[in-house]
Amino acid sequence: MNTFGHIFRLTSFGESHGAAMGGVIDGVPANVPVDADALQQFVNRRHPEPHTGGTARREYDVVEVLSGIYEGRTLGTPIGFIVRNHDVRSGDYDHLRDAYRPSHADYTYQMKYGIRDHRGGGRASARETVTRMVAGALATQMLQHLGVHVQAFVECVGKAGCRLNPEELDIPGNAESSHFNPTQAGAKAIRQEIAKAQKLGDTLGGTILCVARGVPAGWGEPVAAKLHADLGAAMLSINAVKAFEIGQGHQFSSLYGSEVQDLMKPDANGRICFAANHSGGVQGGISNGNDICFRLVVKPVPTLMRETPVVNSSGEAVAITPQGRHDVTAVVRAVPIVEAMTAMVLLDHYLMSKTNHL
Amino acid sequence: MNTFGHIFRLTSFGESHGAAMGGVIDGVPANVPVDADALQQFVNRRHPEPHTGGTARREYDVVEVLSGIYEGRTLGTPIGFIVRNHDVRSGDYDHLRDAYRPSHADYTYQMKYGIRDHRGGGRASARETVTRMVAGALATQMLQHLGVHVQAFVECVGKAGCRLNPEELDIPGNAESSHFNPTQAGAKAIRQEIAKAQKLGDTLGGTILCVARGVPAGWGEPVAAKLHADLGAAMLSINAVKAFEIGQGHQFSSLYGSEVQDLMKPDANGRICFAANHSGGVQGGISNGNDICFRLVVKPVPTLMRETPVVNSSGEAVAITPQGRHDVTAVVRAVPIVEAMTAMVLLDHYLMSKTNHL
Amino acid sequence: MNTFGHIFRLTSFGESHGAAMGGVIDGVPANVPVDADALQQFVNRRHPEPHTGGTARREYDVVEVLSGIYEGRTLGTPIGFIVRNHDVRSGDYDHLRDAYRPSHADYTYQMKYGIRDHRGGGRASARETVTRMVAGALATQMLQHLGVHVQAFVECVGKAGCRLNPEELDIPGNAESSHFNPTQAGAKAIRQEIAKAQKLGDTLGGTILCVARGVPAGWGEPVAAKLHADLGAAMLSINAVKAFEIGQGHQFSSLYGSEVQDLMKPDANGRICFAANHSGGVQGGISNGNDICFRLVVKPVPTLMRETPVVNSSGEAVAITPQGRHDVTAVVRAVPIVEAMTAMVLLDHYLMSKTNHL
Amino acid sequence: MNTFGHIFRLTSFGESHGAAMGGVIDGVPANVPVDADALQQFVNRRHPEPHTGGTARREYDVVEVLSGIYEGRTLGTPIGFIVRNHDVRSGDYDHLRDAYRPSHADYTYQMKYGIRDHRGGGRASARETVTRMVAGALATQMLQHLGVHVQAFVECVGKAGCRLNPEELDIPGNAESSHFNPTQAGAKAIRQEIAKAQKLGDTLGGTILCVARGVPAGWGEPVAAKLHADLGAAMLSINAVKAFEIGQGHQFSSLYGSEVQDLMKPDANGRICFAANHSGGVQGGISNGNDICFRLVVKPVPTLMRETPVVNSSGEAVAITPQGRHDVTAVVRAVPIVEAMTAMVLLDHYLMSKTNHL
Repeated sequence: MNTFGHIFRLTSFGESHGAAMGGVIDGVPANVPVDADALQQFVNRRHPEPHTGGTARREYDVVEVLSGIYEGRTLGTPIGFIVRNHDVRSGDYDHLRDAYRPSHADYTYQMKYGIRDHRGGGRASARETVTRMVAGALATQMLQHLGVHVQAFVECVGKAGCRLNPEELDIPGNAESSHFNPTQAGAKAIRQEIAKAQKLGDTLGGTILCVARGVPAGWGEPVAAKLHADLGAAMLSINAVKAFEIGQGHQFSSLYGSEVQDLMKPDANGRICFAANHSGGVQGGISNGNDICFRLVVKPVPTLMRETPVVNSSGEAVAITPQGRHDVTAVVRAVPIVEAMTAMVLLDHYLMSKTNHL
Repeated sequence: MNTFGHIFRLTSFGESHGAAMGGVIDGVPANVPVDADALQQFVNRRHPEPHTGGTARREYDVVEVLSGIYEGRTLGTPIGFIVRNHDVRSGDYDHLRDAYRPSHADYTYQMKYGIRDHRGGGRASARETVTRMVAGALATQMLQHLGVHVQAFVECVGKAGCRLNPEELDIPGNAESSHFNPTQAGAKAIRQEIAKAQKLGDTLGGTILCVARGVPAGWGEPVAAKLHADLGAAMLSINAVKAFEIGQGHQFSSLYGSEVQDLMKPDANGRICFAANHSGGVQGGISNGNDICFRLVVKPVPTLMRETPVVNSSGEAVAITPQGRHDVTAVVRAVPIVEAMTAMVLLDHYLMSKTNHL
Repeated sequence: MNTFGHIFRLTSFGESHGAAMGGVIDGVPANVPVDADALQQFVNRRHPEPHTGGTARREYDVVEVLSGIYEGRTLGTPIGFIVRNHDVRSGDYDHLRDAYRPSHADYTYQMKYGIRDHRGGGRASARETVTRMVAGALATQMLQHLGVHVQAFVECVGKAGCRLNPEELDIPGNAESSHFNPTQAGAKAIRQEIAKAQKLGDTLGGTILCVARGVPAGWGEPVAAKLHADLGAAMLSINAVKAFEIGQGHQFSSLYGSEVQDLMKPDANGRICFAANHSGGVQGGISNGNDICFRLVVKPVPTLMRETPVVNSSGEAVAITPQGRHDVTAVVRAVPIVEAMTAMVLLDHYLMSKTNHL
Repeated sequence: MNTFGHIFRLTSFGESHGAAMGGVIDGVPANVPVDADALQQFVNRRHPEPHTGGTARREYDVVEVLSGIYEGRTLGTPIGFIVRNHDVRSGDYDHLRDAYRPSHADYTYQMKYGIRDHRGGGRASARETVTRMVAGALATQMLQHLGVHVQAFVECVGKAGCRLNPEELDIPGNAESSHFNPTQAGAKAIRQEIAKAQKLGDTLGGTILCVARGVPAGWGEPVAAKLHADLGAAMLSINAVKAFEIGQGHQFSSLYGSEVQDLMKPDANGRICFAANHSGGVQGGISNGNDICFRLVVKPVPTLMRETPVVNSSGEAVAITPQGRHDVTAVVRAVPIVEAMTAMVLLDHYLMSKTNHL
């Protein structure tokens, strides 16, 4: 299964060290202007910034759109695209042809398929997410026409940072913003935490907060494909994401019901508004008009820059020493991917909601 | 959207106070014996036990199987079933016809559809999960033929209980087991916590741990429909579930990579085994042969047994006092539903995996 | 696979001699009034009329709607329904437990599933189509709100009848109309042909013309799920239907291009109109605003009222003499089912078309 | 909707005069050797042969496989591919920017999407079928491992040719075979018919017979996605195909039931065999082990090489004279596409059938 979405659908392909990544975006609303430069810039955001834990590998993710856009507008037909894999030093991975790295997908792919492309993780590489950036860029542009803005933030990395308050966040923020931790203290502490881990040759996980502002009440589905379930599945599909929570999330576990009711009241103009947003903008799987707020946890990068005991496909214990390029943490790089997936899910649910009425 | 699954699919229907709940299970493997008594008993487990925070409402959820099983074996054709809604005192809900209860789906359904059945929550009621119990019962029986056993446990309720160690759990346990908290201290503390909240007229959330033992390596999908993403979506689709984590989950956020590697090694017989299971049995979206372990958070029941300020559909502030029957906590009742959904997802992925090879 | 449709979906269940037929209709537009009497009357049309080749078996297909409709309007939630199987003389089928009837699905079900319900054809019985009548009745009512009317006609049975001209047909016709052959000569000849076959103990096939009037330009899909491909698949899914053609159909094979161009021209009011409708209202998989016209061929009922050589499951040659009740022709009974399936496909494509634009 | 298939799925993209055609093939069985040369040769068969009614336009449909195949074997991951559009003289189509050609999809695309790429028919061009050739080539290779061979033949063009008898056909035939009409008389008559129409500046339709040999009993689905319904939808999705019939097809209309029974009997070895194959190898939507035989009708190419009255988007009557390159008939070019789509449907149903049993 390599297709995301119900109406607005991305079907992607590509192994990390194959010829190209790419995909087909189907269910695209027609006759909508597309800003090709903004699309490419959105994709560029996936590049790691040197000071935030990313690797030195430079990727020129040049998006070639092959169909579905004509004279600057969507045709309604599928948008096919590719992103060539350039900076490929497959030789770096020869020592992995026959080794199953711990906490990677080497072993599980081999067990599932009986074959795998070991170079750079093959299909399991985070490079796969470049295709989501392309579809997410498109969805983001479309949501802007609907007044919906999605923004994600690095909340914590390792033991640095702390829980952010969505209400205090500036969304949509400055376009130049790195969507990094928005507090000065948090950002500094996180950079220090990353630098420390790098010295240790170790790696770090963290948490990301994502907020969608401007979603009206009524997007979502009642039983299967609940809005937060679709968001959860989208987040959990991102490499290294291991937990998802909506609204107050795991804090709901230890609070009383009386502490987390989202009471409603009429505002000065007689419109319904909410006294709180513990629910994170979704009730019963359907948006209620508040900010949609959720968090996710990214595990530490499993490859450490040290000798590591592994088993090979003959079942023998051997040791490998990682080569190539590896991030200290995937948290920073995950931020734009979180935004992309969120935009895709929201646009998809918007389109579904159009079929609710005759 | 009211369909779960890719191959093994449940499409359900039913409002809480309508004529019946029911569904169609399609993609059922043929010629498999079905134990009808065990199926009904599995569904009965959804009934609340009086000492664990459930309500006094007795539900006789009699499953009427209408098709797809003949002379005790599955035909491979869809299994249609209904469960009549009997103990319905719709009059209890008249005061809600025009009121949007806080942290319920009343308002969002109205916004989405422009109409709703206000009685007992309508389609948004947890009564909907009875249909999942039926499909889950069937999936559970089929998984048993494959040597796979799913069991969920109440880990915490409110501030009582603590994180369980999956390795120490007896699975499949005693059939008489309530799948409640398996530690004596935890169970006692949780019962006390529930009793305390009940006196306060308040409600509680909590955490559930679910373990699937016996899943071989190789079930799951690489990008969309990753095994843990499908499990996450299934859990988040259960009423009141607000968070999901696989393996070490949100603890990954603050640990070093060196602390959470699942190293592999050959065992005495030369077979590959794992020194740890931080990952919760899934790598890259595909099972690795370890226990599949995940947790979820249930929010407190939003209806408190006290006067509550609400708005009505005219946007006026009014107050309601809940009538009818309401649980102190949904955690206990959610356990068998968690097991049911887990079994459905696992069987579905098993069937998908059969198409991986010519 | 027992689900029809993309957005408006019917998932059905039921064996001919099981407890009930039924289904779930999902993707139903909300807040639309439903005329329950008209729905039941639509379903009643599936009953054979004595003079048109149907059997003497009376079926009281009482539709029990179990969900999704509240106070006479659709809720947007799935509509579950059942139709009990009453007049079941399963004993009539004991002689078929171990016999594969020619040109029936007995053998293929056994080969696919390794098990089958032999009573009355089980899932392969045309009784399954009662569930399509329910969904089709609902779709028909919704299409009427959109100004779309679907009507099918018996064109030929055996060698009687002849090709009808859609332009001359009165649509929507008299509600009392049997949707039989609308020409006096054709109707008379067809009744004689059926009477003749009945005397011979033989059976007949025939052709049905279906016309949908009022479909605007723009419904359909460009590559997969073309409007006429979805209509074709829907028709071919009806028991005994063996051919489908849109517009001029198989006559296109032997005509010159110059004979079948649908030239367009401005009408007196400057609107585009068509000089001909050889295409049957669909171009490139998308409706063009003309009548949608297609035909289908129903094969003769395979069970003859005479001794028939068959093989049993041990591979031995035996003979059976049909008992129970069998139609001379399925053509007449298929007409309302054709209308039901057509309405379902059209409503589905209407709903899909709503997602074409932001 | 641009996705074919349930398990083995092709999602395609591309406009005729855009940068490239392409697609993603998902659900590919893993670890199967792929002959890349044979794949390219299969795709090459789509090129028109000069003597059979094709145009002079040469297309070098070079398939670039970008993923999913590694060291000559399928990885089980999706196969992404593109085919560049080279020989593009878009200027040839400038006169069509604002004109709706009769019996083309120009008008319907404009009505559906509010925008279209007028160059060469855009997405509605038969050039789209090159992507089906790629997926079909792969499916064909996989079916060969299963002993299944698909072959289609030109039966009639205009008034030349006649109904072929599937039993007399040599399948799999000579690899050099053009899959043209296999009878000497038929082939000669058809070439003459084409030459005659070409002189007249007119165009022709025709019929194609397709046979799949070696399909075992048990492939197919019982209600939706019946094998012949899926084949029908696949054929009707091919440009210019307007009718589909399985087995005896429209002849069923005028024959008695006693004339078309497919009686079964034990053969010399006690195995069940069929005395006839009127049904075309499918009963109740499931294969019965006989040759699967179906026919389809291709309409005449709608563009004639003469001045043609059209309307433009302002609703004015204007005239166009076609330029560029146009076939006299699409029948010959459709043959390999018919084979490709058939192979895709059959492999898909084979994979689905693997999930019928635990």
